[in-house]
Amino acid sequence: MTVSTCTERELISRIQQQLPPAPAWLPVGIGDDAAVVEPARNRLEVFTVDAVVDGVHFDRRFTPPAAIGHRALAVNLSDLAAMGAQPRLVLLSLALPADLPLADFDGIVSGITQLATREGIAVIGGNLTRTPGPLTIDITAVGTVKRRNVLTRGGARPGDLVYVSGSIGAAAAGLGWLQRDGAGVANTCVERYLRPIARLKPGLLLGRNRAASACVDLSDGLADGVRRIAEASGVGITIDASALPVDPEARHWFESIGQEATHAAICGGDDYELLFTVRPRQRGRLKAAMLHGGVPLTRVGVCTADRALLLQATPQTAQAPLPDGFTHFR
Amino acid sequence: MTVSTCTERELISRIQQQLPPAPAWLPVGIGDDAAVVEPARNRLEVFTVDAVVDGVHFDRRFTPPAAIGHRALAVNLSDLAAMGAQPRLVLLSLALPADLPLADFDGIVSGITQLATREGIAVIGGNLTRTPGPLTIDITAVGTVKRRNVLTRGGARPGDLVYVSGSIGAAAAGLGWLQRDGAGVANTCVERYLRPIARLKPGLLLGRNRAASACVDLSDGLADGVRRIAEASGVGITIDASALPVDPEARHWFESIGQEATHAAICGGDDYELLFTVRPRQRGRLKAAMLHGGVPLTRVGVCTADRALLLQATPQTAQAPLPDGFTHFR
Repeated sequence: MTVSTCTERELISRIQQQLPPAPAWLPVGIGDDAAVVEPARNRLEVFTVDAVVDGVHFDRRFTPPAAIGHRALAVNLSDLAAMGAQPRLVLLSLALPADLPLADFDGIVSGITQLATREGIAVIGGNLTRTPGPLTIDITAVGTVKRRNVLTRGGARPGDLVYVSGSIGAAAAGLGWLQRDGAGVANTCVERYLRPIARLKPGLLLGRNRAASACVDLSDGLADGVRRIAEASGVGITIDASALPVDPEARHWFESIGQEATHAAICGGDDYELLFTVRPRQRGRLKAAMLHGGVPLTRVGVCTADRALLLQATPQTAQAPLPDGFTHFR
Repeated sequence: MTVSTCTERELISRIQQQLPPAPAWLPVGIGDDAAVVEPARNRLEVFTVDAVVDGVHFDRRFTPPAAIGHRALAVNLSDLAAMGAQPRLVLLSLALPADLPLADFDGIVSGITQLATREGIAVIGGNLTRTPGPLTIDITAVGTVKRRNVLTRGGARPGDLVYVSGSIGAAAAGLGWLQRDGAGVANTCVERYLRPIARLKPGLLLGRNRAASACVDLSDGLADGVRRIAEASGVGITIDASALPVDPEARHWFESIGQEATHAAICGGDDYELLFTVRPRQRGRLKAAMLHGGVPLTRVGVCTADRALLLQATPQTAQAPLPDGFTHFR
């Protein structure tokens, strides 16, 4: 049974069956020409959209349907986390190849709806279309944030300290493992790749405590995130390689395939950690995010007036240019 | 020159060059992890998303790039019109084949941004990805509406009169013309297909005057729209075939290829007119929409307690079942 045996309406109804009751702030939900929403009071709204494409952002051969759905939503939530926002609602736009098994469709939808439900996010609408091309999942996510708690990329100043949440490298290692060994392999790196966790709570706490001067999420690697903060803020950044929280299992993987682990972790994508900067005298404000964010925060570098992006391997060695990150497009 | 010669950032900057300055209600626009928006005061928000896929919803062989962009946005605006909403902002998610000429990319973007600018809509963000499949344009549009002015599909009652805006059939005829004669053909039907006009002003006026009890836009044909209002409202509808405002040039086209024109116009998609119902004693409220909406409104049928969907060819003939509309998915 493939999706081509269903009408659009039947597929929509399969999605609706997986959804909890609509929230009170949704006077018109799925099933009309558009959804009608009551805005949250005294909040700004944060909008993001991200698409994942089979063969570009995931590979159906080793990514289970529920993980495809989970990842498609998590990458959006990670963008909201990086703004200090609380996610509120999403719209799903799915372009489906005719031969997509109906069970895979249900699995993808369950990956999305389970994560949405767990985070208290309403699926308020969407669009289904067939495509002669690859499965494409486009999700628009909307969150809310108080004006004074918005995090942007542009607020870092020379002297600010650079932090990263959690650990880096695990997702890239997990992807390498899956590409080599196929769908059967299971370990924490593979899990990090298949079911990334958006750092929503740390992002909210950094925003609420006004602890961070700039923040991005690491979708395309730490080097790319460093570059984005540096460019938006007009600063340079020097990263202390020895301080980087490279996931130990990832380090083991990279070394086993003959790659320099720190370099691989800096350039590897899909971590979805937060990279942020903090004014030195406001380090105290990090405490709540440290205590209640559920994830370690590690100081990994410093912002400089000189606009170079540098990597210091050890305190004894010379600084080298930061390697290029991962780029999706070229 | 194809899009594959550019980085994602270069393509984004080509889009930004086509945009007017950001509105004051957009504290963070394109270029951060997400966009930050101040909600409009005392308004509900209306959300819709629609994707168009090369080979499914358009054909690059006879659809100029600017028309592809225009149509991709217009179908979203039509959904907002059907809710009585004023469009405010959009997010663009484009999946681009590597061999898409850069000039076509610019043309598609110009089709979107010109329509957006003309309607006072801000492009606040988006996503670019490459795809091994067909060009896919996914647009999320958000509008605003006062709570008392929301139009839905579900408010029709037996006895309500059924109206349609403008004329029907022209876009289907235009598509037929293009499919037969290729990109060179130009006439009003082709223009209606290539550059559909969302009925924003009539939709706003119907909502503000509280003239309509139910409303949908005609994306997939009048028969499909009738079915959607009937199902959502729990009524039947009888359409008076002789009253239908079939576009005269479209009628001529359908007859020239041996099709019954009224039937073809009822089933043809892409009209993007509004189909709506009005309580008989509230017909007076239609006047403002008639006078200021810039488009004729034609009474074409009536809602019935019996839930059948019927077509009355002439007052003298028997009623027949309404034909099936166009369905995108199967």
